[in-house]
Amino acid sequence: MFSSCTLLLRRDGPRHLKHLSTTTRLPADLPLSHPTFLVWASNTSLGKTLVSAGLAASSLLSKSHSRPRKFLYLKPVQTGFPSDSDSSFVYRKLSSLSLRRNSLFPLFSSNHVLRASVPAANAVLGQGIAENGECGFRNLGWYEERRFEGERASAAASELVCKTLYAWRDAVSPHLAAQRENAVVEDAAVLRELLRCLRVESEGGGDEKKEMDVFCVVETAGGIASPGPSGSLQCDLYRPLRLPAILVGDGRLGGISGTISAYESLKLRGYDVVAVVFEDHGLVNEVPLLSYLRNRVPVHVLPPIPEDLSNDLMEWFDESCGVFDSLKEKMLSAYSERIKRLHDMPKKAREIFWWPFTQHKLVPKGAVTVIDSRYGENFAIFKDQNNGFITQQFDACASWWTQGPDATLQTELARDLGYAAARFGHVMFPENVYEPALKCAELLLEGVGKGWATRAYFSDSGSTAIEIALKMAFRKFSFDHGILSEDNAAGRSVELMVLALRGSYHGDTLGAMEAQAPSAYTGFLQQPWYTGRGLFLDPPTVYMCNGVWNLSLPEGLCFGNPKLENIAFSSRNEIFHRIRDNSDLAEIYSSYISQQLSQYSGSGGFNHIGALILEPVILAAGGMHMVDPLFQRVLVNECRSKRIPVIFDEVFTGFWRLGTETAADLLCCVPDIACFGKLMTGGTVPLAATLATNAVFTSFIGDSKLNALLHGHSYTGHAIGCTAAVKSIDWFKDPQTNLNIASEGRSLRELWDEDLVRQISSIPAVQRVVALGTLCALELRAEGHNAGYGSLYASSLLQKLREDGVYTRPLGNVIYLMCGPCTSPELCSQVLVKLHTRLEEFCQTK
Amino acid sequence: MFSSCTLLLRRDGPRHLKHLSTTTRLPADLPLSHPTFLVWASNTSLGKTLVSAGLAASSLLSKSHSRPRKFLYLKPVQTGFPSDSDSSFVYRKLSSLSLRRNSLFPLFSSNHVLRASVPAANAVLGQGIAENGECGFRNLGWYEERRFEGERASAAASELVCKTLYAWRDAVSPHLAAQRENAVVEDAAVLRELLRCLRVESEGGGDEKKEMDVFCVVETAGGIASPGPSGSLQCDLYRPLRLPAILVGDGRLGGISGTISAYESLKLRGYDVVAVVFEDHGLVNEVPLLSYLRNRVPVHVLPPIPEDLSNDLMEWFDESCGVFDSLKEKMLSAYSERIKRLHDMPKKAREIFWWPFTQHKLVPKGAVTVIDSRYGENFAIFKDQNNGFITQQFDACASWWTQGPDATLQTELARDLGYAAARFGHVMFPENVYEPALKCAELLLEGVGKGWATRAYFSDSGSTAIEIALKMAFRKFSFDHGILSEDNAAGRSVELMVLALRGSYHGDTLGAMEAQAPSAYTGFLQQPWYTGRGLFLDPPTVYMCNGVWNLSLPEGLCFGNPKLENIAFSSRNEIFHRIRDNSDLAEIYSSYISQQLSQYSGSGGFNHIGALILEPVILAAGGMHMVDPLFQRVLVNECRSKRIPVIFDEVFTGFWRLGTETAADLLCCVPDIACFGKLMTGGTVPLAATLATNAVFTSFIGDSKLNALLHGHSYTGHAIGCTAAVKSIDWFKDPQTNLNIASEGRSLRELWDEDLVRQISSIPAVQRVVALGTLCALELRAEGHNAGYGSLYASSLLQKLREDGVYTRPLGNVIYLMCGPCTSPELCSQVLVKLHTRLEEFCQTK
Repeated sequence: MFSSCTLLLRRDGPRHLKHLSTTTRLPADLPLSHPTFLVWASNTSLGKTLVSAGLAASSLLSKSHSRPRKFLYLKPVQTGFPSDSDSSFVYRKLSSLSLRRNSLFPLFSSNHVLRASVPAANAVLGQGIAENGECGFRNLGWYEERRFEGERASAAASELVCKTLYAWRDAVSPHLAAQRENAVVEDAAVLRELLRCLRVESEGGGDEKKEMDVFCVVETAGGIASPGPSGSLQCDLYRPLRLPAILVGDGRLGGISGTISAYESLKLRGYDVVAVVFEDHGLVNEVPLLSYLRNRVPVHVLPPIPEDLSNDLMEWFDESCGVFDSLKEKMLSAYSERIKRLHDMPKKAREIFWWPFTQHKLVPKGAVTVIDSRYGENFAIFKDQNNGFITQQFDACASWWTQGPDATLQTELARDLGYAAARFGHVMFPENVYEPALKCAELLLEGVGKGWATRAYFSDSGSTAIEIALKMAFRKFSFDHGILSEDNAAGRSVELMVLALRGSYHGDTLGAMEAQAPSAYTGFLQQPWYTGRGLFLDPPTVYMCNGVWNLSLPEGLCFGNPKLENIAFSSRNEIFHRIRDNSDLAEIYSSYISQQLSQYSGSGGFNHIGALILEPVILAAGGMHMVDPLFQRVLVNECRSKRIPVIFDEVFTGFWRLGTETAADLLCCVPDIACFGKLMTGGTVPLAATLATNAVFTSFIGDSKLNALLHGHSYTGHAIGCTAAVKSIDWFKDPQTNLNIASEGRSLRELWDEDLVRQISSIPAVQRVVALGTLCALELRAEGHNAGYGSLYASSLLQKLREDGVYTRPLGNVIYLMCGPCTSPELCSQVLVKLHTRLEEFCQTK
Repeated sequence: MFSSCTLLLRRDGPRHLKHLSTTTRLPADLPLSHPTFLVWASNTSLGKTLVSAGLAASSLLSKSHSRPRKFLYLKPVQTGFPSDSDSSFVYRKLSSLSLRRNSLFPLFSSNHVLRASVPAANAVLGQGIAENGECGFRNLGWYEERRFEGERASAAASELVCKTLYAWRDAVSPHLAAQRENAVVEDAAVLRELLRCLRVESEGGGDEKKEMDVFCVVETAGGIASPGPSGSLQCDLYRPLRLPAILVGDGRLGGISGTISAYESLKLRGYDVVAVVFEDHGLVNEVPLLSYLRNRVPVHVLPPIPEDLSNDLMEWFDESCGVFDSLKEKMLSAYSERIKRLHDMPKKAREIFWWPFTQHKLVPKGAVTVIDSRYGENFAIFKDQNNGFITQQFDACASWWTQGPDATLQTELARDLGYAAARFGHVMFPENVYEPALKCAELLLEGVGKGWATRAYFSDSGSTAIEIALKMAFRKFSFDHGILSEDNAAGRSVELMVLALRGSYHGDTLGAMEAQAPSAYTGFLQQPWYTGRGLFLDPPTVYMCNGVWNLSLPEGLCFGNPKLENIAFSSRNEIFHRIRDNSDLAEIYSSYISQQLSQYSGSGGFNHIGALILEPVILAAGGMHMVDPLFQRVLVNECRSKRIPVIFDEVFTGFWRLGTETAADLLCCVPDIACFGKLMTGGTVPLAATLATNAVFTSFIGDSKLNALLHGHSYTGHAIGCTAAVKSIDWFKDPQTNLNIASEGRSLRELWDEDLVRQISSIPAVQRVVALGTLCALELRAEGHNAGYGSLYASSLLQKLREDGVYTRPLGNVIYLMCGPCTSPELCSQVLVKLHTRLEEFCQTK
């Protein structure tokens, strides 16, 4: 039995890592084939590295393990290098322990420091070495290895791989060291490198290693919220991977507090904490900790660590053996449970969920997407292939158009939601006031309601906001037109109807459905009570085709007007320009609308148009059709002149969805009532608001409670949703937090590359394109059963896009990309390029 | 100029506190007449006491202040006493500083230690002193005072009052010291004592002090989550008061992390952190802190504290003067802003809110309740009297019946909501699966849906859950009765109606309204589109009057059946007993229902009863009527025999509201479809679920997407709501967390004292009482305009109850108390006693 020890310092890195250089594509997927944990601590110097070393010993030196194991220890960020090197510590301790414990199996250990700042590299290699890696770094190539033969020298060796990814010389917080040593590394680079190491090492270097059990531990630097090299807090830096966590707590006086707070900060970033471990200081800190954790997370207590710095800790490791074994077992079982659950989820989902808008018969097991988490605009999705891995997909359907937050806002929302839940939970709204609801109402009236609205009525969803709006409008209409005068006993014989656009959608509750034209959603099969209480006009639409914006008029409008055919626009801006108010087309629109209204009221009966309801600019669920804004403006003016209240359904369009905070700005006119939802809470929880003018409000004032608007929902004005709304509304419009804000705060900069959009509109398979604000939609040319809501025509295309990391969901043969108000144009372009490529492929196959 | 110094040790406490003994009623209100702050630290030994002393110096020793100030320093919990005494430290340092700075005005200082554990008292007074205060404590009566004359000796003196409320000898965490010294004090006692000191000192001891500016600082012990004497974490212990916070952070290496985590733990408990302050260690920790805080919370950096223990810190205080001045200014301005906002809120609310179910004309400014926060079942309410204070009111309306959490669950929910927001925000539901939605569906099917439901359909509110249920039921009915057979082109001529009970309420959206009988909510004034698509039966009800449970039959039922008059029950249990299935009454119910159904279907036309919809046991919004459960069971059986799908609307009754997890258990029969909401998320955010049997689900299976249930809402199955539901459902049913769980988990123990309920039912002003599960409702005898939903008859009574700390909201002349599933019967009794007293008064005035 002997042990060999080698220390190599080579500029081209160590032998067995050479194959890395052949991997050109950076790995983006996180393998789940083996357990990987992040080791966090509630403060510095609490023994993260001792815990890592103890876990390594438990994995590699146990007499019981039957097949060779690999233990991968990664230290992404090391300061104080080379005098401090945690990977070197783990490497050395394991070497000593393997000799001491005389384990049965051979052990091959290595320690590798990949990159160091120039000062750190100089400290190792001597002065004057220039950087040769990333900006400010040297590819250090520090490599040492050691082999312990063990009793069964002929058996396959277990393996300890220790790696430091980035090292700095100063023994300070990484952000300071990086600044001082002029060697800053971006978060994405750290993650890429980390993922690469995890993937390479867990796949093994060659065939003979494939059978190995691999156990990976990634040790963070300092406390959980200590800044990383870029200045991001480490708990934020590692958040995209959402690796399960081990928290090294503090057993000292005051340590309960720091441990609990650190635990909460990890939870507030979506981490799962699998176990807490800390050094015993005789204060029985585990008792209050376990009580706080309600025994759901185990707390492991390590024996006191000798204070004498010369102590080699061998006895301490021996003493701690049992603790590390049970910690490791807990980690392994947490890993197995997670993997089992991830595998089982699609089957269970198909058994017990009833998904909306989904024909379950058409969803095979493999089609169910397991969403492990969201990070800003991206989903982390579990894939049941290659032993399982987590991959990233851009949420291009914006999760039913609710999404807006970038990763930073998401964390801030998490903290604010927690705050609101602790401060209020939900509290009773009527006749009461509390800060989040008041602040939210203030922001709504100063923002999307500015200049016209004076009152905010809260509810839970777009549908309920619409039902409330209709009740408001009908009361106002009845009030203005004497229908409610007390001596009018004929109230019931009056039928109030809406004026609306064909293709509009306002929600799925009956009242909202009644305000929309017949469609696939409204048949007897779906809603036996639907009758369609409205006059539904076919709207003129605009769209881009072959790089040009065109106007498309419905038959009723262009018939007999040959000059109305083939109207095109030089730019999208022209479409919205108010100069069009004086055009012939405006005149034509106006007389068409007047004529429709008189025809309707002249048709006899007791029917009155009691409200105009419209989705400004974009008919969303109806297929992402862009209505000619001039038509909608004329419509509003016609109704206003007849004292018909105007409702804008801004549930989809509100809060920058179309590039302005309210789509009323695009139409250049205001409503009497408007409905908001979706993006209002930044895509967190349901909340809706119906805003109204003072004139609408006063039509409900009277001496009796029975005159009031008697409509409410349990969670009306709920504090948590209002808090999320306050944060999101502010965040989206503040140029400090939303870099897309342009035009002095009035609009977003262009998010979709205009050239690319034009190119897409020129692809033969594409019938029309609409790109506006956060939306880029297109309709595929399709006929017969390939067209319309039930169509599955786009599914092969969408499947390809998902493989590209773009999660889309079609509206029949209409597909769209949707980003958040803060998403960078660069990211949008990346996604758009993928769409373009796949569309061209699609075009060739059809 | 001279200074005097006195140290008194008296068993009866110091002179100027004597009047306390005359205050028998413990103060429950928190005065806001002067600023009061909690001083927290992210760890022990970071200088909380230095900060407190610095603030005291800034308040009392500044040359600029024009009128005398009082600085109140409170240390509720002190360990290591008497060698450690923070109040003594502040007292001594201020004395030294006042001499050193030679301030203009006289200063009167005192330090008082109120209670000490026996060992701590012995250390002061000598061995062998027995306890004479609360269990394990001595009223120590340690008191010292000192007077500094200043240049203007004749001016009114400023005042420093330092107090330690509870002291222990061991220098360990308070929970350990309290255990070891056998002197545990409950959280409520600490708070009561703290409130008493705040009130006494901010009111001043006599008239001459009323003009003083008072500034109060309460210093916590250890870190923010260090356990207090009872074992509760201090951040939980002080939560009911929600005092604004100063966080003393950590300027050392690793201190950024601890400071941020501590900040987050405070936010997660609803605290407002006004400023962060820490000692400079040369690491510029303020930069990442300010970046994290987005400059919204100021960070103050104190000069390094001399390490030499013999240093008297005088120079350090001089050096820190500017920092403390600006910290104090920030605290004062935060206080002023808060007070201004609290005062302005009612006015602003009346200007911009549009409250549901509220006639704004009937809400004068003084009637608006400002809810500052919630702590478990209690509201903290701002009162604009006596210079402003915060008072507690029991949320007896359970905030529109949504509330359940006790204070502990509230904090756990806050953390879990934050976790879900960080991990998911909201993610797309259809064809996807993610942990919170899956777990929630599993818990629903294992719990409220056990034994019958196989699918969970999520939506946002009770109303939407009902609309979905109706669509499910009608499809199932059509499927079963051949209405949907493909060759049936007459679909549209069939009218599907519901069978429902008069007095039911199912929500305010049109579809839900159509399923209820005409009422105050359904007139043309409220909902012009309402027609009432149902056969509505008058139900027999049961109620307690004069201590006896009676049955009341509607006219249609008892007519001609004299033996049906005056049916009474020996107990509530008898009402629910299945033995009644064999009674004559069951027979009568059955034939009555059959007859009604045949009459209806025999009336010609295309009308079919396509669904039975009912609120099991209690018609809630309709006036808290308890329907005879036998009648509902017979109804269900009759419908089932006719293949009419049965819908239970459990939005109100679900999740232990009536003492069982589902009210179906009370009826002893199951539905085909059931709707849940309200309590499901523990009263945090909107979420609803419609559960269905497999037979209902399969009626939507087909080859086309158009056969699927095309109904959804943006936030369907939102991760945050599902997470809250998972936590709440588990919490409510677990005997470990809900001490009310009885009968092997099947029901809650009796929450309302039966004798008291009987007594209330015997008060002449009370017409009927229903007490069941978390509900105790009564109807006041009233006639004419005093009866019904619009009635204001109960308002004087409710006003009195609010003065008693009970927040109720009536349904016309029906008033009720509602607690959470975990509320202790003791608390319920306290509230019930208040109601009883006020009812007797009310009775005398009428």
